[in-house]
Amino acid sequence: MTISLSGRNRMPAFGSDNMAGVSPQILEALAHCNDGPARSYGADEVSARLERRFAELFEHEVSVLLVSTGTAANTLCLAAATPPWGAVLCHPLSHIENDECGAPEFFTGGAKLVPVEGPLAKIDPDTLRLRSRAGRGDVHSVQPACVSITQATELGTLYTPDEVATLGAICRESGLALHMDGSRFANAVAALDVSPAEMSWKAGVDLLSFGATKNGAMGVEAVLSFAPERGHELALRRKRGGHLTSKMRFLAAQMEAYLADDLWLANARHANAMAARLGRGLAGIEGVEVQEGAQANILFCKLPEGMAAALLEAGFYFYADRWAPNVVRLVTSFATAVTDIDLFVSAARSFGMGPIAGRS
Amino acid sequence: MTISLSGRNRMPAFGSDNMAGVSPQILEALAHCNDGPARSYGADEVSARLERRFAELFEHEVSVLLVSTGTAANTLCLAAATPPWGAVLCHPLSHIENDECGAPEFFTGGAKLVPVEGPLAKIDPDTLRLRSRAGRGDVHSVQPACVSITQATELGTLYTPDEVATLGAICRESGLALHMDGSRFANAVAALDVSPAEMSWKAGVDLLSFGATKNGAMGVEAVLSFAPERGHELALRRKRGGHLTSKMRFLAAQMEAYLADDLWLANARHANAMAARLGRGLAGIEGVEVQEGAQANILFCKLPEGMAAALLEAGFYFYADRWAPNVVRLVTSFATAVTDIDLFVSAARSFGMGPIAGRS
Amino acid sequence: MTISLSGRNRMPAFGSDNMAGVSPQILEALAHCNDGPARSYGADEVSARLERRFAELFEHEVSVLLVSTGTAANTLCLAAATPPWGAVLCHPLSHIENDECGAPEFFTGGAKLVPVEGPLAKIDPDTLRLRSRAGRGDVHSVQPACVSITQATELGTLYTPDEVATLGAICRESGLALHMDGSRFANAVAALDVSPAEMSWKAGVDLLSFGATKNGAMGVEAVLSFAPERGHELALRRKRGGHLTSKMRFLAAQMEAYLADDLWLANARHANAMAARLGRGLAGIEGVEVQEGAQANILFCKLPEGMAAALLEAGFYFYADRWAPNVVRLVTSFATAVTDIDLFVSAARSFGMGPIAGRS
Amino acid sequence: MTISLSGRNRMPAFGSDNMAGVSPQILEALAHCNDGPARSYGADEVSARLERRFAELFEHEVSVLLVSTGTAANTLCLAAATPPWGAVLCHPLSHIENDECGAPEFFTGGAKLVPVEGPLAKIDPDTLRLRSRAGRGDVHSVQPACVSITQATELGTLYTPDEVATLGAICRESGLALHMDGSRFANAVAALDVSPAEMSWKAGVDLLSFGATKNGAMGVEAVLSFAPERGHELALRRKRGGHLTSKMRFLAAQMEAYLADDLWLANARHANAMAARLGRGLAGIEGVEVQEGAQANILFCKLPEGMAAALLEAGFYFYADRWAPNVVRLVTSFATAVTDIDLFVSAARSFGMGPIAGRS
Repeated sequence: MTISLSGRNRMPAFGSDNMAGVSPQILEALAHCNDGPARSYGADEVSARLERRFAELFEHEVSVLLVSTGTAANTLCLAAATPPWGAVLCHPLSHIENDECGAPEFFTGGAKLVPVEGPLAKIDPDTLRLRSRAGRGDVHSVQPACVSITQATELGTLYTPDEVATLGAICRESGLALHMDGSRFANAVAALDVSPAEMSWKAGVDLLSFGATKNGAMGVEAVLSFAPERGHELALRRKRGGHLTSKMRFLAAQMEAYLADDLWLANARHANAMAARLGRGLAGIEGVEVQEGAQANILFCKLPEGMAAALLEAGFYFYADRWAPNVVRLVTSFATAVTDIDLFVSAARSFGMGPIAGRS
Repeated sequence: MTISLSGRNRMPAFGSDNMAGVSPQILEALAHCNDGPARSYGADEVSARLERRFAELFEHEVSVLLVSTGTAANTLCLAAATPPWGAVLCHPLSHIENDECGAPEFFTGGAKLVPVEGPLAKIDPDTLRLRSRAGRGDVHSVQPACVSITQATELGTLYTPDEVATLGAICRESGLALHMDGSRFANAVAALDVSPAEMSWKAGVDLLSFGATKNGAMGVEAVLSFAPERGHELALRRKRGGHLTSKMRFLAAQMEAYLADDLWLANARHANAMAARLGRGLAGIEGVEVQEGAQANILFCKLPEGMAAALLEAGFYFYADRWAPNVVRLVTSFATAVTDIDLFVSAARSFGMGPIAGRS
Repeated sequence: MTISLSGRNRMPAFGSDNMAGVSPQILEALAHCNDGPARSYGADEVSARLERRFAELFEHEVSVLLVSTGTAANTLCLAAATPPWGAVLCHPLSHIENDECGAPEFFTGGAKLVPVEGPLAKIDPDTLRLRSRAGRGDVHSVQPACVSITQATELGTLYTPDEVATLGAICRESGLALHMDGSRFANAVAALDVSPAEMSWKAGVDLLSFGATKNGAMGVEAVLSFAPERGHELALRRKRGGHLTSKMRFLAAQMEAYLADDLWLANARHANAMAARLGRGLAGIEGVEVQEGAQANILFCKLPEGMAAALLEAGFYFYADRWAPNVVRLVTSFATAVTDIDLFVSAARSFGMGPIAGRS
Repeated sequence: MTISLSGRNRMPAFGSDNMAGVSPQILEALAHCNDGPARSYGADEVSARLERRFAELFEHEVSVLLVSTGTAANTLCLAAATPPWGAVLCHPLSHIENDECGAPEFFTGGAKLVPVEGPLAKIDPDTLRLRSRAGRGDVHSVQPACVSITQATELGTLYTPDEVATLGAICRESGLALHMDGSRFANAVAALDVSPAEMSWKAGVDLLSFGATKNGAMGVEAVLSFAPERGHELALRRKRGGHLTSKMRFLAAQMEAYLADDLWLANARHANAMAARLGRGLAGIEGVEVQEGAQANILFCKLPEGMAAALLEAGFYFYADRWAPNVVRLVTSFATAVTDIDLFVSAARSFGMGPIAGRS
């Protein structure tokens, strides 16, 4: 069998939701807005509409800055909330700590990321309370300035609005800003069935990286500040970081289509459902342990010895051996098909009974 | 008359080439590559093809990094070539000096931009020779490290390959890197009818910001290093700057379509021709002075008192009053129509004979 | 004649006031405070006394941070007043622009120094008014944030309190901070016979680098902020810059002795008088042009062809040929003797009449 | 009893070795070199002699840069060895991680400090081997660039030359630089009775912060690079950090006196002996636990409940309650007297038998 990610009979890919393509509605929006000249750098009409749309969606005044990557969104938020001598308190498993090549340190001018542990990739409130006071007022120490949480987390787990609110209250007590890395915000909102407002400013979130790329856009994320007066500084930081897109209408059009008719929620619900189906399927297989707590579109599993290698060899695509022996990460997306799931589960089930069959 | 940049009867916009939309071929390429999953962060097949394509086009081994803005391309190049205590020698009119909100200073870790004057927005070799030695070895002074030139320049003028080679030789003598901000590289190559190689590494250019956005792409620029061993550092800097796009295939597809069938040259030739037509038209009008030397798609003109205001009021879009009284900048693009030019010229000619007519 | 800066019969050195040694009173203070243990990092008793002393001297609440170099003092002030995307407006001849190897860019996180011209190394108010508005609110441009002036200037000229107040008023109108690089503040105050308050906050100065090293200390400068609430940020920046001295009492003791019994003014008056005597002496020599306007302890002169070389060869020490042909800079200090001056003048006068005689 | 650190009958202070004053020989050297003018910025004769002295002492060519604080020395070394996207591997208890307010992040341009655990504040080689490979070549991750160890450690423990050599070998294998924070290098060399060369470059150390301030100087540390070609970059970084002292001869004179007649070793031996005496004395007291492994001039002890408070109340000065309940840190110095030790031990012994007596 030829293993390939291209070509017609390609095998299901669970490597990351950023391996998926673009929702058709979003592609159409790009074509649709390609109609004559438009003012650049966000002075276009789509961008103007989008600001109002976000305010409506979040039931709050909000400054909106579009950027093309999640790292840009996160680091702009962190930089706006953390002076160079500040500390960003975050989970040791967080994306900003592990997967951005020091971008937060770069954009903040050298702030320090300080780990705050907790089960299931979620910050523990008691530990946060402790860390939020460490070194306060001592010139020899970096000064806690900002807490950053990921929602949904890097393990596919979720903070409930109440859990966020508990962290938010600690932040307010200590004068810290609360940032939410929402590269999978849609997955969280869809899974918890709450409003965007409940999931963000009502729970104390000051700055939100509102992701779209992983959930069907081509490349757009919004930096949302619920204190709109931060907007000008964010705009200067965006330009200075090289993230002010000239033909901004094409970012705005993606985001507009993403929000229209709740496409963002529909996409996320689908991705979540696919992960749930995958979890149920795998849980029924002897020797497979599915990590508890996953509610979004990421699933960590421990597979029996040899199963991961066999599945990879059969042409499935996912990450293995980065975390612990036989632990794999499976990520679904808006584009994952039911047949992708079923093919994978059935392949896993057949492990040990001869070679695993791929797509015929 | 309703003045509007949207709607069917919109008026010609000469504000910037980044007000234009996207070439149809490039939009189609986006749709075409939206076909199933692909590896992210540049490990996809389009990206792989593109590396080879650039090597072929430039007749040289080259490391290729795609980013979504020109500021990102420029600042990555400058940062790779300039230590924090270094000086970037550039023209006082350059984009990096005036229009990037200090992005070069940010990405280099605080290097200094040192002006090197010269007529027509082009660095004067003798002045460069002088400045390239200033402060060398003196710890009290920043150390010249890199020369950055813009091609086509911010005034629409061009360096000939020989002129670049003269600067390149000075750089080599002094151990400086030579960067070319080629956000309008296509316009220069098309106007001078030279090969990309002649316009770059053969003339001593080490790092090239190869622009596409202003000339028909949606948002993609390539950082090209003719010393490919710089590639890894550039890749780390790109990620750290938040410029590593996850769904990279969509940047690569734009660039691939841009280069295919010489679309990039065709677009540039058209833009240049429109500017030339505009220049000829305006030069024939009493009281209008067209700046000499423009060969690309930017035209600076001095208009008679009141003409700029009248044209703006009639609905034309361009920048005025930023440089000197009655000096305006007119920029054409691949999307500028002959009728746009003729409408503008005829409107200008009619100035002083009653209200200027817009599009009927 | 053996030319040497060491040994008993050393020749007068006019290279810089930082070539002088330390006032005896200051050395004594170091010995005197070396008495048993003391709390470190500024929690000692001398430091506490010094805070009160400065408040008294300046007739204003003030936060005081001691550092060991003038570059540290300047850059901490600039960093406190200028965000990374900000511009520091300063004279093209200023020390921060030319002689600190980009330290202001480093400490501010990449801000831009923007030149504001004016005669005699002094910022011209009309030019400042213009520059203070350039790019305001435009995200493509760095944002004017701070004005920095040097007093006495790098040419030995002075701003009167009224002149400073004019600049201060422009700063307030535009929301800019006003920093004074006072590495030779004592020379200015002594020459103008004004109070420290008149020379600083009463004229609109927000942050002052109060120099002592060039005027008799071993190595101590004070960062003074007339908005004392800036003190905590400055303290964090100082530590982070590696400028928080552990045995701080030895910096404080230097500064205390420097201020005691107006030693600082006595030293400065002497240095100024020596420069004036030098100026008068040289002005009487055929072919020597003494730059007008010098009132402090720096004197620029244009010498007849060959005179500088002859004087250097005779063993005098000063800087030549850095500015223009035959232009030399002569700097006096608290340690310059009348005989040093007279020897130099007489040597200059004898130029052309055979070899110049040194100290016998 | 009046508790005071000043006055004649002051109580022993074990807060830090930086609470001690200055060795008389060093004060004398300052007075001695205050003799007429000298070239500034390190071009003086004492500085020249010092370079040769260090080469001789370390039996190796070495570039020498004097600075006035330990944080400056450490951060210059780290910055020279670590790109902005690099990781500095260091012990979680290290000074650079905990006590420098993010100075390493500032000077490196935003590098990341990555903890490498190990007992007794010493990096464990196996853990280092693992961490030194983490993320290598992956653009999403910071890149290990430098290992920093403290000698003597923050717990007063020591690496043997063999232990350093083991770490040095791992560094070489992985292409990492090895930095030693030697703010208490003298204490280590004295305790282990090895040569400076054995303790540094022979064991693989590339860059050494050679401390003097804590061991009797007023304020001077040397950055030593055993790859002298790094010297120019270090010099530029020093200037840019505001750490190039103008009257450098006064730093050089301190260091020269510190090294003369092995004053540095004599001072360190005394401090170490005082700590050993303190350890023996306290170990004999019921309920006191002295941490094992201390060999230099720092002693951590766990005291019985209430003893620390009683000793502090009696006027002794030391840090308590920063680490764990009833754990205190006691630091001796060249200036600690035998009677200081005995007074403290006897006071501790009398705890529980009525009020503790101070100095009568």
